[in-house]
Amino acid sequence: MRNIGRLLPMRDHAGEVIENAAVRIENGTVAWLGHERDIKPGSDVPELDAQGAVAVPGFVDPHTHLVWAGVRREEFVARLAGEQYDGGGIATTVAATRAAPPDELFVLAAERGRRMIANGTTTVEIKTGYGLTPAEELKCLDVVRRLAAELPWGVQATYLGAHVVPPGRDRAEYVDEVIATIPAASDAGATWVDVFCDEGVFTIDETRKILQAAKDAGLGTRLHAEEIAHTGAADLAAEVGCASADHLEHVTAEGARAMAAAGVVGVLLPTVTLSLRTFAFGQYQVLRDAGVPLALSTDCNPGTSWCESMPYVVQLACLVYGMPVHEALWSATRGGAAALRLGDVGHLSVGAKGDLALLDAEHEADVVARLGAPGCSATVVGGQVWQSPPTPSVNV
Amino acid sequence: MRNIGRLLPMRDHAGEVIENAAVRIENGTVAWLGHERDIKPGSDVPELDAQGAVAVPGFVDPHTHLVWAGVRREEFVARLAGEQYDGGGIATTVAATRAAPPDELFVLAAERGRRMIANGTTTVEIKTGYGLTPAEELKCLDVVRRLAAELPWGVQATYLGAHVVPPGRDRAEYVDEVIATIPAASDAGATWVDVFCDEGVFTIDETRKILQAAKDAGLGTRLHAEEIAHTGAADLAAEVGCASADHLEHVTAEGARAMAAAGVVGVLLPTVTLSLRTFAFGQYQVLRDAGVPLALSTDCNPGTSWCESMPYVVQLACLVYGMPVHEALWSATRGGAAALRLGDVGHLSVGAKGDLALLDAEHEADVVARLGAPGCSATVVGGQVWQSPPTPSVNV
Repeated sequence: MRNIGRLLPMRDHAGEVIENAAVRIENGTVAWLGHERDIKPGSDVPELDAQGAVAVPGFVDPHTHLVWAGVRREEFVARLAGEQYDGGGIATTVAATRAAPPDELFVLAAERGRRMIANGTTTVEIKTGYGLTPAEELKCLDVVRRLAAELPWGVQATYLGAHVVPPGRDRAEYVDEVIATIPAASDAGATWVDVFCDEGVFTIDETRKILQAAKDAGLGTRLHAEEIAHTGAADLAAEVGCASADHLEHVTAEGARAMAAAGVVGVLLPTVTLSLRTFAFGQYQVLRDAGVPLALSTDCNPGTSWCESMPYVVQLACLVYGMPVHEALWSATRGGAAALRLGDVGHLSVGAKGDLALLDAEHEADVVARLGAPGCSATVVGGQVWQSPPTPSVNV
Repeated sequence: MRNIGRLLPMRDHAGEVIENAAVRIENGTVAWLGHERDIKPGSDVPELDAQGAVAVPGFVDPHTHLVWAGVRREEFVARLAGEQYDGGGIATTVAATRAAPPDELFVLAAERGRRMIANGTTTVEIKTGYGLTPAEELKCLDVVRRLAAELPWGVQATYLGAHVVPPGRDRAEYVDEVIATIPAASDAGATWVDVFCDEGVFTIDETRKILQAAKDAGLGTRLHAEEIAHTGAADLAAEVGCASADHLEHVTAEGARAMAAAGVVGVLLPTVTLSLRTFAFGQYQVLRDAGVPLALSTDCNPGTSWCESMPYVVQLACLVYGMPVHEALWSATRGGAAALRLGDVGHLSVGAKGDLALLDAEHEADVVARLGAPGCSATVVGGQVWQSPPTPSVNV
C-alpha cells in the first residue's frame, strides 16, 4: 500500500506516526514499512493507493457476542423510557437462538461480521452464551468455527456457558454442567473460557471454580467483571491470571492495582454505558492511574450494544473518557491483541500480519472529531483488500 | 415508492405508522400515500422498491454553519486533554474562511452537503458567521446561494454577522455594522437573522437591538441561547418572537414556559454537548415539561460539532436525553420544519414535498439501537432518488 498520508504502526508506543508512508505485504505478512521515498527501486509494493489517508493496523475486537438470533427492540425502547436493565433480557435472546437452525445463526452472524470487517476489524473474539445447554453451546461454537473459516479474519472462540444461570436451573448443578462441558467446548474450537461474574449472575466462588477448571483443561481465561456492581471480580481476574477483565464500571483502585500487577488487560466497552444510559465513565481514569493496559471493544450483542464499528467505539471512548486519540487507536489495535494474547496482530511490524484499516480521514484526530461518520474507507486482511459483497441496494 | 415496511408520515402526531405502505409522488409533491394494497390499479407509483425498510420524511436540519474553511484539530485534541472551550476557536475558522476564495468555500461546503443529503437531509438551514465583515459575510451568503442552486435540497439562509465580536473591534460599532448590513444580507438571500446571545458573546441588550432591526427589515429571527450560561436569552427569544431558540443547555423552567407561550421552537444539539464533553442533558426534560415544541439539529460546524448525519443526531438524542424514538424522529423532521416555519416539508401528506429518507432498518427503533451504523440507505428529494456522485474510492 502506498500514498499513506499518516501511518500509525503501533510498534513500541501509541504516538508513532510515519508520514507519506508505504507498506509492503508479502505472503500475508508485513515485509517492509517506512517512508514511501525509501522504497528500493523495483520493490514489489502492491498498488493499493491510500490517497493520503490515515492507516492503522486492522482493529482487534476482543469482546463480542456475535452469534445470536432474535431482536430485543422492546427492551431497548423500555430503557429509553427509564426502565432499569437487570440482565433478564438475555433470556429473550437465548430462546430465539435455541430456536434458530445453525445455518440461520451463521447467516445472521456473518452479515454482522462482514459489516465489522468493512469497519476495519480484522481480528475478533466471539463468545457463545445464548445456548446455555451443552448441545446449544456447542451448536454456537460450530457457528463460530464457520465464521472463522468462511470470513477473511482472525477469530478467537470463547466458551461463555456461564453467561447467566438459566431460569429454573439449580445454580450448583448448572455450574457443574458448565465445567463438565469445557472439554467438549475445547474440542469444538474454544480456546478461552469467560464467566459473567457480577451481582445477580455468577458469584466470585462459582467463577473461581469455573476458571480453575478452564485452566486445568489448558484454556485461557477472561472475565465479565465489575459491570453491574463492585464484587471483587477484578481481584479474582488477577488471582486467576485472566488475560482480560472486561467492563469494569465499578472497579476500585485496589482492584485496578491488582490487575496491573498481574498483567490483566482492562477491556473498556463505552457503547454499553451509552446504551444502558448509566453514564459511568470514571473507570477509565482509575485503570489508567493504576497502569492497567487497556483495550477497547464493541461488546457487539443484541441487548446492550448492537455495535459493529470499532471506529465508532474509538470515537466514543475519546469523547466520554477523555482518552487521547492515539491511546484510543492503540487500545483498539495493540490493546485488543494484548487482551487476546496475540503477538502478530494489532501492530504493523515486519513479520506481523498484513492487516490494515484505512481511515476515512487525513488526520487520525478527524476520525474522532467527525461525529457520525463511517470511519473506515477500506480494510486490508493479510494483504488482500476486503471487497464487501454487493449489498442489496434500492431498486429504482 | 412501494414496499415500505413502516412509513412514518409525521402528519398529526409522532406515533403514526403505516405498515406495508407506498407513496406516490407527482411533480415533486406527494400525491398519495397509504397501504400498498389500496393503490388503485394503474396508479403511477414510481418503481422505487424500499425492500421493507422504514421511511420517514426527509430530515430538516434547522441549525448549521456549513460554510467554512480550515480545520480546528488542535482545539479538539486539547479539549480531550481537559481544556475548556471558551469560544475563541471561532477566530481560527474566521481567518481561514476569509482567506479562502468563494469557489473553494463552495467546494468544501458542497462536499459536506452531499454527505448530509446521503444521510437523509433534504432541507437545511445554513448560517454565515465566519466572515464578520460586511464583504466577507456577503461572500459567504453567495456560497449559500450556490449551495441552494446546485444541490438538490431546500436551503434557508441565515445572516449570523453577530456570531462573535471580532478581536480588536469596538463592540458598539460592530453591533451597528451588523445592523447596517442586514438589508444587504437580505438582498443576498438571507431570510433569517441569528445572534449568538451568551456570556462572553453578545448581551441581551445588543441582541434585542439586532433582532429588532431584523424584524424591521422583514426578516425572521432565531437565536443561539443559554448555551454557555443562563442569560435570559430564552425569555428574549419569546419577547421578540423568534422562530427558534437553539442550544438551551442552561435554560430555566421560567424561560422554557416563556418559549412555550410564544411558540418558540427549542432546537436541541446533542452532538455539541458530547463534543464539548460537558454532559449537560437536563434541558430536554425542562423544555418538555414546559411544552416547548422541539427540533433536533446537527449544528454542523468545524469546532464543536463536525456532524453531517441527522440519523446520528436522532440516535444520540434518544440515548443522552432518553427521548422516545418517535419523538426524536418527529423532532428531526416536522420539528425542524417548525423551527424554520416551513409547512410543506418534514411530513408526508398530500401536497407536501416529495422528500423521503429511507432508513437502513426494518424498525425505527433499530436506527437508534444499532450504534455507529450509517442510518440512511437512500434519500428521495422531490420524488427523485438522490444519486451520490461517485466518491473517489481506493485504487487497487
